Amino acid sequence: MINPTSMSIPLPLLDQVPTQAQIEQIHHQIAAWVPPTPVLNFHFLDRELGCSIHFKCEQFHEIGAFKLRGATSAALALDESARSKGIATHSSGNHAQATACIAQRLGIPAYIVMPSNAPKVKIEATRRFGAEITFCEPTQQARESALAEICARTGAYFIHPYNNYNVIAGQATAVKELLEQVPDLDVVITPVGGGGLLSGTALWNHYLGRPVNVLGAEPVAVNDAWRSFHSGKIESNASTDTLADGLKTTLGEYTFALIRQFVQDIITVSEQEMIEGMSVLWKRAKLVVEPSGAVPFAAILRDPAPFSGQRIGVVLSGGNVDLDHLPF
Amino acid sequence: MINPTSMSIPLPLLDQVPTQAQIEQIHHQIAAWVPPTPVLNFHFLDRELGCSIHFKCEQFHEIGAFKLRGATSAALALDESARSKGIATHSSGNHAQATACIAQRLGIPAYIVMPSNAPKVKIEATRRFGAEITFCEPTQQARESALAEICARTGAYFIHPYNNYNVIAGQATAVKELLEQVPDLDVVITPVGGGGLLSGTALWNHYLGRPVNVLGAEPVAVNDAWRSFHSGKIESNASTDTLADGLKTTLGEYTFALIRQFVQDIITVSEQEMIEGMSVLWKRAKLVVEPSGAVPFAAILRDPAPFSGQRIGVVLSGGNVDLDHLPF
Repeated sequence: MINPTSMSIPLPLLDQVPTQAQIEQIHHQIAAWVPPTPVLNFHFLDRELGCSIHFKCEQFHEIGAFKLRGATSAALALDESARSKGIATHSSGNHAQATACIAQRLGIPAYIVMPSNAPKVKIEATRRFGAEITFCEPTQQARESALAEICARTGAYFIHPYNNYNVIAGQATAVKELLEQVPDLDVVITPVGGGGLLSGTALWNHYLGRPVNVLGAEPVAVNDAWRSFHSGKIESNASTDTLADGLKTTLGEYTFALIRQFVQDIITVSEQEMIEGMSVLWKRAKLVVEPSGAVPFAAILRDPAPFSGQRIGVVLSGGNVDLDHLPF
Repeated sequence: MINPTSMSIPLPLLDQVPTQAQIEQIHHQIAAWVPPTPVLNFHFLDRELGCSIHFKCEQFHEIGAFKLRGATSAALALDESARSKGIATHSSGNHAQATACIAQRLGIPAYIVMPSNAPKVKIEATRRFGAEITFCEPTQQARESALAEICARTGAYFIHPYNNYNVIAGQATAVKELLEQVPDLDVVITPVGGGGLLSGTALWNHYLGRPVNVLGAEPVAVNDAWRSFHSGKIESNASTDTLADGLKTTLGEYTFALIRQFVQDIITVSEQEMIEGMSVLWKRAKLVVEPSGAVPFAAILRDPAPFSGQRIGVVLSGGNVDLDHLPF
């Protein structure tokens, strides 16, 4: 149980795996900034696939992706003094927009380091939220040193995109909502990149103690999570040649430990299967979903037999895609 | 009140304006074939526009448009013997798919007359539902004579896309659902082409007796409804140069009479405003909406001031669009 009087005092930054009560409190805290997203069902897809799919529509957030949950959770954990110095991250993707968006809403500075080759559409989206963007060479080292310099100079707090317990707790609120909206699911599938969404999902499901299988899904071209899950150590990708720009990162120490412990399996799909899943979501379900977000549905579409008769929660993680370069 | 024992006996074909009880019964009858569509709200759009918009998502039907309601309503009104001869229509658009879809579900033939220049994507969608397609020259006369020949030969029932009271009653169920889902609306706006959706919406709102303003919206390039509304007689379009392929038709006798009586106003938007509305729905709300379906929202986006503080139901009428030819 949450003590109602504690509700007005934000949780501090967490240095351990979030408890069930902490995730509940964080969900309560972010609610004013991150309204619940709807769950959609398409009876004709269910009929054709022989299972019942409940799409958790995280593409409907203000920034078009679930990342707003984690960034908001972390930003609200800072006390007044820390918060006023701002928040920072390095990202060319949805976490950059999430950090910029919540900073703008809170009236604090956001410092985003982006690689010089970041897609224009994502630069513009981040700029729209008033963030200060610093461009750097497109290498991990250049990103990290640019960010370190900014944080040292400004005192801004670095919100890691996934290896941060407040972020993980924030992402866990997506499945918390989903299981409140559709309680009797047999399976929940989320994409897995850095693992924030998947680890939060698995952790929350563990706390509920329900017999729901939690699966991660990723493109076979960046199957580091699948390999890590089976080898028992964090594996990296030799190359990242995939359209799923949100799933190129490798797992973090925190996310990997939770995934190993509480996830049932990782499944992989080919690029072509991912594109086919995305195409069906656009053309039949009329939903704008980015390649990364289509991966879990693509796994069902490719081979619905193992899911026959099941009630499946599918997290559509985002819908930020360049409409000039659709892959179908 | 509906007599529950009458529920299992389909209403016959209507030759007068549907009563409230008849619309209720039709809604009940089509429910197994046409599940309710969700209503979505985007708090960030509300914040930016200064009003509260509730999107009735008719693009989520199996055929991607509201037309399935009317076609199903009409098909179910046929008795066994009439129904077995099949249903027919001439259309290059969503009504063709709707007629083909419900015929396939009922296991009866569908005969669709399409102009030879109909978009490939719509021909394929109609064919996917197993309809027998007859191509004709792209003139109204050629369509009508091809259809007459088919109906004479097969005995199939012609489902007019809008000038049919069973179709109008079917389309009325969209706003019936919307006002059950979000009861306290100030305004409801639908696109207006032939007027089936708008007349059904206005009629149902009239029966409810609530102070909801019902507005129609159309592109200025095909502003026949606006001109008809003001002149008092059915006007036609000298040209139909608009991207809103669903709104090129003129009003019918039945729909016009209801629109004149029960609609508060018709508003028009430019092509550019329509495209801008469509663009925002895709890029910000992540919804696939066709040009026709974006017209009501475009009217608010163009000038939100008259809607300030209001609760608005916006019917997104469909999402069938050629992804290779996006206008933005």
